[in-house]
Amino acid sequence: MLNVAIVGASGYTGVELARLLSVHPGVSIACVTSQQSAGKPLSSVFPSLRGLVDLPCDPLDVELVCSKADLIFAALPHKTAMEVVPGFLAAGKKVVDLSADYRLQDQAVYEQWYQAHSSPELLAEAVYGLPELYRDRIKESRLVANPGCYPTSVAIALAPLLKADLIRPESLIIDSKSGTSGAGRSAKVGALFCEVNEAFKAYGVASHRHTPEIEQTLSAVAGTPVRVNFTPHLLPVSRGILSTCYADLRQGATSRDLHELFERTYADEPFVRVCEAGALPDVSFVRGSNFADVGLVVDSRTQRVIVVSAIDNLVKGAAGQAVQNMNLMMGFDEKDGLGVVPLFP
Amino acid sequence: MLNVAIVGASGYTGVELARLLSVHPGVSIACVTSQQSAGKPLSSVFPSLRGLVDLPCDPLDVELVCSKADLIFAALPHKTAMEVVPGFLAAGKKVVDLSADYRLQDQAVYEQWYQAHSSPELLAEAVYGLPELYRDRIKESRLVANPGCYPTSVAIALAPLLKADLIRPESLIIDSKSGTSGAGRSAKVGALFCEVNEAFKAYGVASHRHTPEIEQTLSAVAGTPVRVNFTPHLLPVSRGILSTCYADLRQGATSRDLHELFERTYADEPFVRVCEAGALPDVSFVRGSNFADVGLVVDSRTQRVIVVSAIDNLVKGAAGQAVQNMNLMMGFDEKDGLGVVPLFP
Amino acid sequence: MLNVAIVGASGYTGVELARLLSVHPGVSIACVTSQQSAGKPLSSVFPSLRGLVDLPCDPLDVELVCSKADLIFAALPHKTAMEVVPGFLAAGKKVVDLSADYRLQDQAVYEQWYQAHSSPELLAEAVYGLPELYRDRIKESRLVANPGCYPTSVAIALAPLLKADLIRPESLIIDSKSGTSGAGRSAKVGALFCEVNEAFKAYGVASHRHTPEIEQTLSAVAGTPVRVNFTPHLLPVSRGILSTCYADLRQGATSRDLHELFERTYADEPFVRVCEAGALPDVSFVRGSNFADVGLVVDSRTQRVIVVSAIDNLVKGAAGQAVQNMNLMMGFDEKDGLGVVPLFP
Amino acid sequence: MLNVAIVGASGYTGVELARLLSVHPGVSIACVTSQQSAGKPLSSVFPSLRGLVDLPCDPLDVELVCSKADLIFAALPHKTAMEVVPGFLAAGKKVVDLSADYRLQDQAVYEQWYQAHSSPELLAEAVYGLPELYRDRIKESRLVANPGCYPTSVAIALAPLLKADLIRPESLIIDSKSGTSGAGRSAKVGALFCEVNEAFKAYGVASHRHTPEIEQTLSAVAGTPVRVNFTPHLLPVSRGILSTCYADLRQGATSRDLHELFERTYADEPFVRVCEAGALPDVSFVRGSNFADVGLVVDSRTQRVIVVSAIDNLVKGAAGQAVQNMNLMMGFDEKDGLGVVPLFP
Repeated sequence: MLNVAIVGASGYTGVELARLLSVHPGVSIACVTSQQSAGKPLSSVFPSLRGLVDLPCDPLDVELVCSKADLIFAALPHKTAMEVVPGFLAAGKKVVDLSADYRLQDQAVYEQWYQAHSSPELLAEAVYGLPELYRDRIKESRLVANPGCYPTSVAIALAPLLKADLIRPESLIIDSKSGTSGAGRSAKVGALFCEVNEAFKAYGVASHRHTPEIEQTLSAVAGTPVRVNFTPHLLPVSRGILSTCYADLRQGATSRDLHELFERTYADEPFVRVCEAGALPDVSFVRGSNFADVGLVVDSRTQRVIVVSAIDNLVKGAAGQAVQNMNLMMGFDEKDGLGVVPLFP
Repeated sequence: MLNVAIVGASGYTGVELARLLSVHPGVSIACVTSQQSAGKPLSSVFPSLRGLVDLPCDPLDVELVCSKADLIFAALPHKTAMEVVPGFLAAGKKVVDLSADYRLQDQAVYEQWYQAHSSPELLAEAVYGLPELYRDRIKESRLVANPGCYPTSVAIALAPLLKADLIRPESLIIDSKSGTSGAGRSAKVGALFCEVNEAFKAYGVASHRHTPEIEQTLSAVAGTPVRVNFTPHLLPVSRGILSTCYADLRQGATSRDLHELFERTYADEPFVRVCEAGALPDVSFVRGSNFADVGLVVDSRTQRVIVVSAIDNLVKGAAGQAVQNMNLMMGFDEKDGLGVVPLFP
Repeated sequence: MLNVAIVGASGYTGVELARLLSVHPGVSIACVTSQQSAGKPLSSVFPSLRGLVDLPCDPLDVELVCSKADLIFAALPHKTAMEVVPGFLAAGKKVVDLSADYRLQDQAVYEQWYQAHSSPELLAEAVYGLPELYRDRIKESRLVANPGCYPTSVAIALAPLLKADLIRPESLIIDSKSGTSGAGRSAKVGALFCEVNEAFKAYGVASHRHTPEIEQTLSAVAGTPVRVNFTPHLLPVSRGILSTCYADLRQGATSRDLHELFERTYADEPFVRVCEAGALPDVSFVRGSNFADVGLVVDSRTQRVIVVSAIDNLVKGAAGQAVQNMNLMMGFDEKDGLGVVPLFP
Repeated sequence: MLNVAIVGASGYTGVELARLLSVHPGVSIACVTSQQSAGKPLSSVFPSLRGLVDLPCDPLDVELVCSKADLIFAALPHKTAMEVVPGFLAAGKKVVDLSADYRLQDQAVYEQWYQAHSSPELLAEAVYGLPELYRDRIKESRLVANPGCYPTSVAIALAPLLKADLIRPESLIIDSKSGTSGAGRSAKVGALFCEVNEAFKAYGVASHRHTPEIEQTLSAVAGTPVRVNFTPHLLPVSRGILSTCYADLRQGATSRDLHELFERTYADEPFVRVCEAGALPDVSFVRGSNFADVGLVVDSRTQRVIVVSAIDNLVKGAAGQAVQNMNLMMGFDEKDGLGVVPLFP
């Protein structure tokens, strides 16, 4: 059994990692950390885990964590992550970092959108943990930068079209909607029930930090610099991201043509489901699971394609993809611990 | 006091008309009709109205309605509406029709997206009831076609830019999200709580019937044929539409420039509120009111403008705008009966 | 016009007072205070009020408030309220206090459930602001203690039965469920969207501070000490309280008998609606309004009566009742400013 | 592998059975039936199952079902169930019936609350499938009547106290709240999103059909006839039942005493979790899982105990308990297929 640690276990990504890892056949949760709940069982923080993960929370101490675990999930805010990740690596551990700190390969871009980077030397080494694009490199890596939730939903929606050079990259418009767990579990007025319930708004318009991450991935796939409009919105649901992506087609194509392209592209992917022809995804169909569902429509009136993807932001958009990455890094079956059937309704 | 009728009172638009009209200073609700609830007080159907609108429901009988009321709100499905509206007019009544039946001026377009039209001779006479664009014509009309909810939210968002010729019309992409009351009150599995709650999806992609209505209005404003991508989504909230509209700017413009344009355009409009500079709307800030809130951001990286508008689909998107139209048609103060302050939270 | 102040305007009770008072025919909102938003327009804090209440927030300064207003709504937490209320009174102002600080007449009881009281001399003078029970005394008062939300819902449900001595007071069990706005607008993990959405729990079981307030009112009505079981629960809705009250009947009575008793008792009350015989309330039927809806069923198998009441916790349970009290104190029509029709759906 | 059938697969209980059984190690889903979706893959009805349960739906034909499966889950409405269950048994199949048709042992009681019974001879044979009370009999049975959702939540909450004779049975008051999936998946206005969202009401007061089922179970445990007040309410959540149960204590007892009793009683139960001392359940902590969480408080002021239990109505309240029963009937490990960790948030 592989001993793993969940660093930052009292957030929503933390509890989600605990949910998935507690039933992983090859893994033992050996350490969970939480600054504010140190000493308390994780199941006191999250009674959903009662009887399942009753381990007491440790403080965030690099040495302590390294003494208990061989692979570490860092579920910390950006900036906090890069304060501890180099230490984990120095102790010979493998790391799946769920923050943004090692996702952007270009230090300058990182520092423009975030802040100064304290371990830029690791940027070249870190592998962007999107198995559908970088499976082989992930297998070899000791530091995987787990993708952001929005960028995951967008990459899966658009990669097939960009790879096949079927759309004009400069025309890309991405209108995304995320459930509120994406805002984290810290106490903020803006995330209160009464502020989010029966509400809906755009936020971070033309300024959201996932923009450069999306552009980095799409540019790599397209083989040319891609610049997008990305507009996130806050959905009054707990889980789920739906991204509606618009692009001008380079030349005539039918919904059927592109549907077949998607089916071919994702035929062997264990966690990407192409919707039935004519159907589109709903976030409620992936809830709790590691699936990314994707569907599309060609609008023949405007010669645009509309691709819609849905993921559970806490699973394929965070903890599930992190487990998938661990599976690849450690040589487990890629699906281990990820057999959760979506919960509907 | 003007005697009015609400025809089709047992739907969500019907109860909303009753809510607004019951406190209108110049109006008396003289007749409400409901086929399935004929004989029962409207307040039995909607106990929210108990003590306020206890009038019994009549069956839908043109003669009966005309004997009781001088202005008629037709809150019926399309097709059913055009079966009765000509009769109301023939009896000398004024009509605000909340269906789609008289919104499209071009019979061929109507018949392409809906079905054969049984009173096409009224299409030329009917006035599209968007006061922000057609106030003067509404005042003179005896038949107002009350705009669709999505088209209202889009017209208010885009008219200032199209009028000023600041955007390229062929670039328009409209990503809209509507609360579930827009789906009506008939029993359908797709509108059940468990299907909508914690869910989110696009629907009617590249095929929604509000598309030609949006294009008709935007084309008229632009003075040139406009074709758009319009993608509606179903929000797990009861009320509210948020439309996120994307357009390529013809030339450099800042957020501030365009914000000032919107403020000028809507300075005298009683129900359009331009958000504070830098702020964007939220459907929760217009709930229950006739306001349309609008805000925008210019993305200097892509030279696109993103305009976001929010309305309550049942008020400015239906019943409230209908009352506003009645006020104009009858010479009431345009704001009468529409003083509801948004309900937050 | 009466100049009024809303002290503590940036909470949910504050915005609700602003919503109601902004359309009150006899009142001008002359002052709003907020410590954290001082200097900003109230409509920046709550964009729902844009164009309606754009007044900038003042800091909470007794002298300043008194220089602007003649009647003050104190929408502050308990303890903070009693720090300023005596100053308002000393300056000759009238006060409607929405906190718990002046609700309990017995200082010892207050101090057992809350903390030491700093102005106990006002307890005897303060009038408990439940117009259905204390209308005449409220009219004469300069300090009204606005009732708690739960106690309001319970008093209206049970007073007719206790007055008529039809139930055994020692058998009373009150199972209440409240929307989340009752938890206030301060940032707390427990009130985050993701903690409340799709969740439901009891809290404060056998220990909630509204218990002595409920018992004080019911004891006064019954003319004998009443002790109850009161169990509040947290509902995943923004607004609304539903209280389900159980009591043993002293002797045989039918649902019809008791329904008639309620109809008689509340025949002249402007804001209490007795449901149709056989019907029961739903919080969605009072949303946004000052109504308290009440219905009942006698269970002949167990000889118990179940009374169910519904209010909007922010209106009849807080701001609306406060306006109703002001109307009584100032000689306005009791319904002024309270004509909001419930918003359904 | 055991071949099983899900009869009535297009309802919420059906999809839930499919979710659980699709990952059961000893079972193969050999047949799913749906009258309205016959011929379509179950994953077309529920895209959450895409790639997991793509089996086409059969019509409801007893012979056909019996030719494919050896154990049958009947997820049909009452009355429809008893039309087919005898046929399954006659063909030598085992049946877990999720309807109410075989839950009440007394035919007269069944017929008083439901309708005439067409196979009363099976009532004596059917075993009430609550493993916590009837594990041994379930193991021997070929017909298990799977308990109702409310009765399950109540039995687990009250059995320990009644068994130990610590409470007065005639004092029992049960105030239950259920998520909307309990209302089923047929199209009804009352279950529409806009009718349930932001709403809350009691229903079936003093008349709900689960009352005799609750009383049958509690009477058996208590060894004396028990009559209760049972009041169900409709919660605006998809899943979950919380029951708040009140009873007079026969003699002094502390929360700690009773907490220890519950811990002892349920120490070996795989799916009952007694909350930490002082804590109470929340429906969000059992979502998607087969757990029943239970907690309690003694109110020393009134000498009553308040017991609160939470289950997922579709799992422990329906499909999960059905799988648990199948495991017992077939000699599988009782936990097989039921390892789902609760999904929070």
